Amino acid sequence: MILTVTLNTALDITYRVRSLRPHASHRVSEVTERPGGKGVNVARVLAALGHEVTVTGFTGGATGRVVQEKLASVPGVVDALVPVAGPTRRTVAVVDGQTGDTTQLNEPGPTITPSEWSAFQEAYEHLLASASAVALCGSLPPGVPVGAYAGLVRTARSYGVPVLLDTSGEPLRRGVAARPDIIKPNADELAELTGSHDPLRATQDARRRGAAAVVASLGPRGLLAATRDGRWHATPPAPVRGNPTGAGDSAAAGLLSALVEHLPWPDRLARATALSAATVQAPVAGEFDPGLYEELQGKVTVTGEASAA
Amino acid sequence: MILTVTLNTALDITYRVRSLRPHASHRVSEVTERPGGKGVNVARVLAALGHEVTVTGFTGGATGRVVQEKLASVPGVVDALVPVAGPTRRTVAVVDGQTGDTTQLNEPGPTITPSEWSAFQEAYEHLLASASAVALCGSLPPGVPVGAYAGLVRTARSYGVPVLLDTSGEPLRRGVAARPDIIKPNADELAELTGSHDPLRATQDARRRGAAAVVASLGPRGLLAATRDGRWHATPPAPVRGNPTGAGDSAAAGLLSALVEHLPWPDRLARATALSAATVQAPVAGEFDPGLYEELQGKVTVTGEASAA
Repeated sequence: MILTVTLNTALDITYRVRSLRPHASHRVSEVTERPGGKGVNVARVLAALGHEVTVTGFTGGATGRVVQEKLASVPGVVDALVPVAGPTRRTVAVVDGQTGDTTQLNEPGPTITPSEWSAFQEAYEHLLASASAVALCGSLPPGVPVGAYAGLVRTARSYGVPVLLDTSGEPLRRGVAARPDIIKPNADELAELTGSHDPLRATQDARRRGAAAVVASLGPRGLLAATRDGRWHATPPAPVRGNPTGAGDSAAAGLLSALVEHLPWPDRLARATALSAATVQAPVAGEFDPGLYEELQGKVTVTGEASAA
Repeated sequence: MILTVTLNTALDITYRVRSLRPHASHRVSEVTERPGGKGVNVARVLAALGHEVTVTGFTGGATGRVVQEKLASVPGVVDALVPVAGPTRRTVAVVDGQTGDTTQLNEPGPTITPSEWSAFQEAYEHLLASASAVALCGSLPPGVPVGAYAGLVRTARSYGVPVLLDTSGEPLRRGVAARPDIIKPNADELAELTGSHDPLRATQDARRRGAAAVVASLGPRGLLAATRDGRWHATPPAPVRGNPTGAGDSAAAGLLSALVEHLPWPDRLARATALSAATVQAPVAGEFDPGLYEELQGKVTVTGEASAA
């Protein structure tokens, strides 16, 4: 199975209102809820692609129970979340019915105690023993040490399990130094990591910092990859319009599924780019249209060159 | 015991953010939760005043479970909520840390089926048999007929239980015609009911429409009452500054507690005004400071005249 780690799981709530006006009272016309956090989103896409997936991270309180109830109804996803005393966070996305714009409110998440963090690390090692790959995704809840991902990358490497790291800021900086197999930053995260706003230069720099492969998401311009095997740029067939929520998580799922299927890099990038575009164009945020994905996959352009052997 | 009815119970969530900007992403720095809905707030104040209180209304889903868990920890309050299939609503108050202003997002609440509404009416009749007074509070969830409060007022009257009605719009208009003992509108609700923006005239008019007593809340200017026994105006000792959230519910609790204690109207109004002012000035929205309440109660000015006997 593929393991995804979401240390700051969430219940993602979407509110639709007529028009959001600060300091006014609003009647919410539509409420939707789903389990969230980047690793949970990656797991959902992996399961839809036919992979067996196990999700781990933390769950606590009434919101944690709701997340687990909802996860139980996702086919192909196994829940291995570790219970904690604090409550799982909610995120509230308020969609303005007039403009379509979204205002986001993110709770901080539970404060993890040292013994809860130890319990997680033990559970993680146990799960790695039967994992073909692992994705480490998203922000850290309060109480988890900033070097957490670096430690989790090292443990995965000691088990010989390929690891994709998708986070930002200091946890990314430290995680990269622990030599993950793939990092998947967006342009802002990559610039913050390397200090360079030139994606070509920045992906090379991020490799020198320790990542075996760097796949930078350039938004509508596709993916730029710097790897041991070569450098490539994958571009979707047409400018993609829609809701970018979850597009990065779909790309991560594409990269990871193609990795465990031992596909060459150009095919991995084509899959990730097609999944990402099919997510942006889906009517429901974070979902992807399987038909559109199949159609797009053959139309992604991948340019670049393999390294000299 | 005193019975309070909250057909649209809620989990009231408060988020503190640095500054609310539409279409941006916000980190919530502080999350607080408490069971809400006007009748639940009234019950909490009645219990703090030493009365035995039973709360009824509807509860459903994961949010309903949280409301019930939190109610269980309020001393003096008995939970007699009726289970329904739909989920209890959440309300989210987003407090801007820079301006102190609040932006409110209210979920609509569960859709009540005809058989759930029948089950509630049966439970309500059963509870009335041991009630000394009843408060009917707040908005109606989807599915409950607009004449719901009129029916509940009539049932209470048939049991000889005094009834306070605190709602607005068409449910208030219909409820008033069923002759409740007390209504407690604010200036806007009273104007909507009567068409008059002159509080003196409007309270008289609302009495003619069926309410035995009308207690209009004039915000910082106190309470204006038109009753069978006379007319009075109760004024707090000093201009009240603070958060008006829950002040109306505290006033309702004051009126109802004084009613079951058979206090004369000027004392009822003094209590309601002091409770309301002590709520506005409390640091936590909707709570009241018992010490301040005691201090204010002796300082409220009540002017007016009793009717000729």
